[in-house]
Amino acid sequence: MDEKSFSREIELNRICVKDGFWTEKMELVRKEVIPYQWEILNDRVPEAAPSYCMHNFRVAGRMMEEKRKKGEAYKEPTYTFRGFESLPEDPGHPDENSFYGFVFQDSDFSKWIEAAAYSLIAHPDPELEATADEAIDIVCAAQRENGYLDTYYIINGMDKAFTNLRDHHELYCFGHLAEGAVAYYQATGKDKLLKAACRFADLIDDTFGKDKKKCQGYPGHEIAEMALVKLYEVTGEKRYLELSSFFIDMRGTKPYYFDKEFPPAKDAPKIRYHYHQAHLPVRQQKEATGHAVRAVYLYSGMADMARMKKDDSLLKACEALWNSIVNEKMYITGGIGATRLGEAFSYPYDLPNDTAYAETCASIGLVFFAQRMLKIKPESRFADIMELALFNGIISGMSTDGKAFFYVNPLESDPEACRLDERKSHVKPVRQKWFGCACCPPNLARLIGSIGRYAYTEREDTFFIHLYVGGDIRKTIDGREVTIHIESGIPWNGLVRVSVKTADEKPVHMKLALRIPAWCREQMRLEGAEAFTQSVKDGYLYLDGDYNGETISAEFSMSPCVIEAKDTVKEDEGKVAVMRGPVVYCMEEADNGKNLHRIRIRPEKGFREEKTEEFGIPAVVLECYGLQPQQNTPFRMISGGRDEKSQRTMVTSLYHIYEPEKYENKKLRLIPYFLWANRGENIFSMPTIFYVLINDCMASST
Amino acid sequence: MDEKSFSREIELNRICVKDGFWTEKMELVRKEVIPYQWEILNDRVPEAAPSYCMHNFRVAGRMMEEKRKKGEAYKEPTYTFRGFESLPEDPGHPDENSFYGFVFQDSDFSKWIEAAAYSLIAHPDPELEATADEAIDIVCAAQRENGYLDTYYIINGMDKAFTNLRDHHELYCFGHLAEGAVAYYQATGKDKLLKAACRFADLIDDTFGKDKKKCQGYPGHEIAEMALVKLYEVTGEKRYLELSSFFIDMRGTKPYYFDKEFPPAKDAPKIRYHYHQAHLPVRQQKEATGHAVRAVYLYSGMADMARMKKDDSLLKACEALWNSIVNEKMYITGGIGATRLGEAFSYPYDLPNDTAYAETCASIGLVFFAQRMLKIKPESRFADIMELALFNGIISGMSTDGKAFFYVNPLESDPEACRLDERKSHVKPVRQKWFGCACCPPNLARLIGSIGRYAYTEREDTFFIHLYVGGDIRKTIDGREVTIHIESGIPWNGLVRVSVKTADEKPVHMKLALRIPAWCREQMRLEGAEAFTQSVKDGYLYLDGDYNGETISAEFSMSPCVIEAKDTVKEDEGKVAVMRGPVVYCMEEADNGKNLHRIRIRPEKGFREEKTEEFGIPAVVLECYGLQPQQNTPFRMISGGRDEKSQRTMVTSLYHIYEPEKYENKKLRLIPYFLWANRGENIFSMPTIFYVLINDCMASST
Repeated sequence: MDEKSFSREIELNRICVKDGFWTEKMELVRKEVIPYQWEILNDRVPEAAPSYCMHNFRVAGRMMEEKRKKGEAYKEPTYTFRGFESLPEDPGHPDENSFYGFVFQDSDFSKWIEAAAYSLIAHPDPELEATADEAIDIVCAAQRENGYLDTYYIINGMDKAFTNLRDHHELYCFGHLAEGAVAYYQATGKDKLLKAACRFADLIDDTFGKDKKKCQGYPGHEIAEMALVKLYEVTGEKRYLELSSFFIDMRGTKPYYFDKEFPPAKDAPKIRYHYHQAHLPVRQQKEATGHAVRAVYLYSGMADMARMKKDDSLLKACEALWNSIVNEKMYITGGIGATRLGEAFSYPYDLPNDTAYAETCASIGLVFFAQRMLKIKPESRFADIMELALFNGIISGMSTDGKAFFYVNPLESDPEACRLDERKSHVKPVRQKWFGCACCPPNLARLIGSIGRYAYTEREDTFFIHLYVGGDIRKTIDGREVTIHIESGIPWNGLVRVSVKTADEKPVHMKLALRIPAWCREQMRLEGAEAFTQSVKDGYLYLDGDYNGETISAEFSMSPCVIEAKDTVKEDEGKVAVMRGPVVYCMEEADNGKNLHRIRIRPEKGFREEKTEEFGIPAVVLECYGLQPQQNTPFRMISGGRDEKSQRTMVTSLYHIYEPEKYENKKLRLIPYFLWANRGENIFSMPTIFYVLINDCMASST
Repeated sequence: MDEKSFSREIELNRICVKDGFWTEKMELVRKEVIPYQWEILNDRVPEAAPSYCMHNFRVAGRMMEEKRKKGEAYKEPTYTFRGFESLPEDPGHPDENSFYGFVFQDSDFSKWIEAAAYSLIAHPDPELEATADEAIDIVCAAQRENGYLDTYYIINGMDKAFTNLRDHHELYCFGHLAEGAVAYYQATGKDKLLKAACRFADLIDDTFGKDKKKCQGYPGHEIAEMALVKLYEVTGEKRYLELSSFFIDMRGTKPYYFDKEFPPAKDAPKIRYHYHQAHLPVRQQKEATGHAVRAVYLYSGMADMARMKKDDSLLKACEALWNSIVNEKMYITGGIGATRLGEAFSYPYDLPNDTAYAETCASIGLVFFAQRMLKIKPESRFADIMELALFNGIISGMSTDGKAFFYVNPLESDPEACRLDERKSHVKPVRQKWFGCACCPPNLARLIGSIGRYAYTEREDTFFIHLYVGGDIRKTIDGREVTIHIESGIPWNGLVRVSVKTADEKPVHMKLALRIPAWCREQMRLEGAEAFTQSVKDGYLYLDGDYNGETISAEFSMSPCVIEAKDTVKEDEGKVAVMRGPVVYCMEEADNGKNLHRIRIRPEKGFREEKTEEFGIPAVVLECYGLQPQQNTPFRMISGGRDEKSQRTMVTSLYHIYEPEKYENKKLRLIPYFLWANRGENIFSMPTIFYVLINDCMASST
């Protein structure tokens, strides 16, 4: 591993995003998602299922207060099992002092505070900050004196804390708490929540570790691995780094820790826990498996640790897992997790379009993973995938009004199938208001709010632009402050302008590293860069020289492009996708009428681009030609059409003698994939992968 | 309903099957399936999971003996819940006197005795008969004095008998018992088992009925409906007919009976019990729904009852349900049940090829249904479907050596997917030895053993040939005995010969009704029928006249034919099937190499037929032309192929820029669908539905 290739994140308070695409999303998050989620957390949205998140913290807080008051006289409750989700209507728990919701419900607060923190950085807001402080007070009041902070066990009985790492989510909740706390500290300088997270981390460090007297377990749902690295980076406390390293190293070693919690059946398979990525020690893992969100969260933590420890064996595993995802298990939208069974990766090349899981959170996790790989080595392949996921499988998770969300992002959706076929019941034909298991909306909020973190990294004298997100970024070179100003037309056009200004208006020597997007297939056009030494490495154009306010323009050609999957992807046989720049396109009944599955696209006829505002944001839609069956040709039954003569009734209308279809031309309108299902709740169908392979001679009216 | 159109089954002892196809299958059943199953029933097959079927009868028999001995002093066990399947290793039941196996395990005996009975008719065998008598003694010894005979409750506690009709299978076990008992009585004249079945029926009749003091329930798993009709037909006891009628009439009425057993949740849907076909009163049912086997068993009972009671409203429902199946929910193989979730019908036109359930038993039930419709009105559409199911989705359930079985009959099978994709784990790439839930093998055995029952029916002066099964059938006309002699080349050629001889060698006036198969697309060639009055009605050729030993030859043209599904079947878009006569063809890797999903078939190039013995039976395979991708064309990555120049690593090898494929001709070999997976356990892939729609201009080497 070459440490010289490392680069660092830019602190968000050095970034001011002003982007034609992302600023609007950030504003949606600020104005819609964050306030709405706060109401959700407090069970104040009548049409949504109660979250019980703040309720649980309040209950735990009252218990802690009582405990402080009573001292030794306080009687701890002994453990009551409440199941994975517990509700007021469950038998035997009618109490206002009960824990409700999912076992991981605490994490909803943490995701919210993280999103709120990012919003406060970009857009100071005393009212939001006051609300956040109030929430933090409630949360911190629930913390036990030993640092423990998970309301499920605080309320239901601490005697069973840390005894079901496999299925319960204490370490997951801790991870989100730490991430939220770090963000809020970075946003406001206030350290109350950070200290609480550290105290919880200290307790976990006392409880888990290599020392045989300690617990040898690790999280059932990963995130603590990367959260502890963040906590280490902000506090400098090495124990946190070592704790993360311990979790990573122990994972998947034999005897399986989870077997201790749940002794396996006699005929249990020798290799198991794929779902938890705990089937093998992480350094031996080569194939991305199991629950997709958990997987990419783990891989992100592994990449962090590889960089922190300069651990080549860990980086090698990360590389293998990255390749496994992007070369065998990723949809063209950047969606991952092909099966709803376990919300998991399927086997290589199994990428069904209609039963895809492709959870918004999983693609977000893929961005986390990509960003961490980029920090180790700036190679555009990571940033290309990051961009692909962002503009497709991630942003499709949110409606254009910021009020409804997809958990699952299929590449084909037929509302009738979603309604009637239990195998597709996870696929929703329209975005939903909120979820009981509300991971995706707040995950989207925290990602969008920190988009600058993924867009750029830096080394002493180098500034990397991985994603062309417009804005101003402050950087210090040799003690001098410089501002990098970026304008970007992406994703709708490939025009990008970058300038570097110094505060003292004198030239500064540095390198700008511009990613050459994978989708830019013709040579890019560069202007204003004549004075700089140009070189290309790993997909980045390096411009080395003295900067003094010059504007460098790069135009990346962005023309519609037809993409085909590798022939091993059976579900895409005879089909293609259409992209323009980083944006994947799809077709809706709203534009193209019924029976979309009968249409064949004719890529050879070219595409016409059209700007539109009909989705409430600027967007480019495509027109192209396709073929559709000329009419419902009256067909011959398999009984052979002698029916009148032979006076017999028909055998079946389901099958008939094949006659090559007669086709007619049809104009098709394709819209960006991420904008599908944004035009009301009308019945529509959405394919992203189109049939092709009909040629001219088959068309009757060419 | 026109009673004059009714026809009757031929008793099996009047039929002697001598058929080029079916005789061999009957011999397999006699020599392999029946003896093997007897060993299974007695837990004497080391490599198969124990059945516990006879074990349970023996345990119950010992209890009854003890009860008889002790009289009033005998203490009945009170009910112990044992779950849907109970095993010796379950906690708390280590006793030799426990019930083991599925709750419906008793029915395995009944299916076996039915198959044994048919075998004894066709092939008397004192040893088998002695074994059967011995088995009957064991079973009858288990019967309670009040007639009750279900070992699950006899052993586990009678106090809960008939309290879980929805999920437990007492009435199902009764139904199979009655069917087995009727068959054994017809085969041997011995009535011990028949009397036991009648006593159980009497008890059920005392327990269930319109009288408000009686139970208003009905079977959770149907079969008793048709079994009671059989019992009525053989005993003349009208109460049995009325009991069946009661079950049919009560089904689906509100309040739902099953709600009484299991009070529904507050938010339960208003219409439910689709799975059990109990969502609506049966006369209001128009769409085939729920568990496919249960459904067709019910519909068969309904058709029986429609005929018995001349009930037009019931017949109308049967017609609607028949049409729902064959016009919206049936695979080209006659397979039904498109989803493994509930082993059930999916919604109309949802017929996925690779995740099909298409249980062997469901297609067998479709044959039951078809035969009952035929008895009401001889229309060839019913017999066509019967034949389609028999030669494809049913007979595929058994290996050519009679030793292994498919439960699920998919139209596409990829062993890797079966192994790695939980969504396809129900699809087995090779036939299995035996199943814990062993419905399909014995169901096949009893169907094959009684094939003559489905092949022919009669009226006073008319003899119907629905299926061309070769053999001699005795019939009485005006007190005179005539023998109908049939020779048939079906399914491999369309040549059929029929002659009618009288014992007294004098002419007899009668009508032969020959089904004109749906697959016979050119006019059939008829010879030797000049002396008869010919007419065609509902797909049957009626030959009316004086018969005196003439041989009538009919040749039904049988050429390969390409079939397409209705365009509403999305899963078959751009695909076709190939049939020859009633046989559907498929393609295996064993003949055609890997990557079958990349091959396009070229039906316009025609087919070459070839006789083969390689499967151990005579068969016809087809050769035809297809196209395959010329080679793995080196493709351009989505990064645009500038990789060497730009020194960057590849983004993904999963997607690349589309270029129309170059194809080359390839000879394809298609084999009968039902013969797939018969050539060893080598890894292969099997599609039945082929890609088409590539025309000449796309082929490079035409």
